[in-house]
Amino acid sequence: MAPITNGRLIFKEAPGPDEYPIPGKTTAYDESKTIDLENVALNGGFLVKVLVLSIDPFLRGRMSVPKGLEKLYPPALKPGEPLQNSGIGIVLRSEHTSVKQGDHVYGRISFEQYLIFPNLNGIEVLKNEANIPISNYLGVAGSPGLTAYAAWKEFIKPKGNEVVYVSTGAGPVGSTVAQLAKRDGLKVIASAGSDEKVKFMQEIGVDVPFNYKTTDIKEILAKEGGIDIYWDNVGGETLDAAIDASHPNARILACGMISGYNSPDSLAIKNIFQIIPKSITIHGFNVPALAPKYIAEFRKEVPGLIAHGELKVLEHITKGLDKAGHALLDVLTGKNIGKSILIVAEA
Amino acid sequence: MAPITNGRLIFKEAPGPDEYPIPGKTTAYDESKTIDLENVALNGGFLVKVLVLSIDPFLRGRMSVPKGLEKLYPPALKPGEPLQNSGIGIVLRSEHTSVKQGDHVYGRISFEQYLIFPNLNGIEVLKNEANIPISNYLGVAGSPGLTAYAAWKEFIKPKGNEVVYVSTGAGPVGSTVAQLAKRDGLKVIASAGSDEKVKFMQEIGVDVPFNYKTTDIKEILAKEGGIDIYWDNVGGETLDAAIDASHPNARILACGMISGYNSPDSLAIKNIFQIIPKSITIHGFNVPALAPKYIAEFRKEVPGLIAHGELKVLEHITKGLDKAGHALLDVLTGKNIGKSILIVAEA
Repeated sequence: MAPITNGRLIFKEAPGPDEYPIPGKTTAYDESKTIDLENVALNGGFLVKVLVLSIDPFLRGRMSVPKGLEKLYPPALKPGEPLQNSGIGIVLRSEHTSVKQGDHVYGRISFEQYLIFPNLNGIEVLKNEANIPISNYLGVAGSPGLTAYAAWKEFIKPKGNEVVYVSTGAGPVGSTVAQLAKRDGLKVIASAGSDEKVKFMQEIGVDVPFNYKTTDIKEILAKEGGIDIYWDNVGGETLDAAIDASHPNARILACGMISGYNSPDSLAIKNIFQIIPKSITIHGFNVPALAPKYIAEFRKEVPGLIAHGELKVLEHITKGLDKAGHALLDVLTGKNIGKSILIVAEA
Repeated sequence: MAPITNGRLIFKEAPGPDEYPIPGKTTAYDESKTIDLENVALNGGFLVKVLVLSIDPFLRGRMSVPKGLEKLYPPALKPGEPLQNSGIGIVLRSEHTSVKQGDHVYGRISFEQYLIFPNLNGIEVLKNEANIPISNYLGVAGSPGLTAYAAWKEFIKPKGNEVVYVSTGAGPVGSTVAQLAKRDGLKVIASAGSDEKVKFMQEIGVDVPFNYKTTDIKEILAKEGGIDIYWDNVGGETLDAAIDASHPNARILACGMISGYNSPDSLAIKNIFQIIPKSITIHGFNVPALAPKYIAEFRKEVPGLIAHGELKVLEHITKGLDKAGHALLDVLTGKNIGKSILIVAEA
């Protein structure tokens, strides 16, 4: 068989500090490479056809590292390199003893249609025993779900009559948090940026879902009598509003601050003083540090909950690797509803 | 015996939002009341001659409650009321079965020379078994020391090779934290606002004492290789600098934010985002909520450590109830060195 095009989404140049990544300018779809699927040498490794890729806000941070955080972030991508993120592929050919043709593999995957892996470093065979759609393993059954699960178990010791507020409650992390909180019997307030997202939050059982673009956060938190737990995916003014509405002994989980991916200055907060009289604890956390402690129970429990409809999943599908730059822009500007999934190929 | 003057320090009017309390304007020494020490009716209570009063920054908050925190603070003083704070007196006469003449009593005391207590609500007999100066019970052996002790035990699980930074390291809370940290084997960096305070921090064993008015906080924290624990008594830019210098898994204790007692806007922080990639936890706490858990072991351990010279105490003495307003202004403008004590009478 003749070589075929092996399309890639490459990084071209960093957006300015206040700019979003623009498809065609920041990234470009490149078709200059080819691959001969039948004859390419594997050298003991295996050949993977990429099926799905996760599109996440942190990809913005791979394009230019926030100032002052150089030591904490991996170095930014170099122009010409493909983007990289969690993804799932199917094995076309294998010379590796632990991997066979037809296996799904999950791990850190370059934004390319076909990839050769020399070994299982950074990638693992995905056993989908719960028989859920594989894309779920990039969302509620994957890193975002594990983020919610691990931090909820580690930091929140919920009492039955408490109230939790979740920002970005329609996203994969926020919606998992909201559903875990409901399973623990809490009252859940959650916000998102569109009426469609509000509808989804209603469907997963959120008691007080609201659209923060049309409803004042401060007013609604006050009207609901304040909060005991805040799951922060936003930062800035929303974090200030949550601190202001917090009861004594509130716990705040700082999971992401999407409001500052493009303009770090908007992450300044004014109400931090209140944590003293209110005895509030704020936990910043990152998943790689916390995940190992919870991954076994997460994998045992969560895919089954999804299969039985006890954890609901919403995905925002974009088709085609050439549209990955658009999908990222949608995530960063809040246009997607649910976990953003890029379909590179249909099995 | 004829009635004698019973001097009081009364609150006159609230300072403006950006103003310090001015003696004579915000407060005034009043000599209009008299008391007949031999004949005044006790009605089953006891008569106390006030000896020492604690002068603390939070007295500023009693004069006008920070905006938005009305529910968390006691209501502000009314004009004409005397100030009130922790203090110690000696019993002149008693009709109470649990209190006898010559006892020292400790508790919440009005800024008056003589007081009649109907019962032991809010006040208790002070048994100074360690035989230390009674004023110490307003500092390292009292609330400030308990603040340091309880939060250190509750939140900090120090590992031997960690580095702690303590702001206001010459004050009663900060100097106790610094000494507890040294007892736990940590490296201690501590700052204060004068060379005399730096000298005291050296005397209590601080490894890297510095004057924040002449030394750049960011530079010194970077030079020392960063920190694992930060005890915050200041807030604002200092808190930002500490977050910036924090290692992964750092713990921050938010104990007070003196930089904002007079101008809450200066408490805004910009670096809160860093707590996520660094997995930092920030604990806000107030002593009344935490104290009951630790007060027994504190009282058993700390006065003895002071008596044996293992915890060092520095006091800034002001004499005369008529000087209480000046003493408070000194505390708020950082002029005092060590715990500010007002001597109302010498036994």
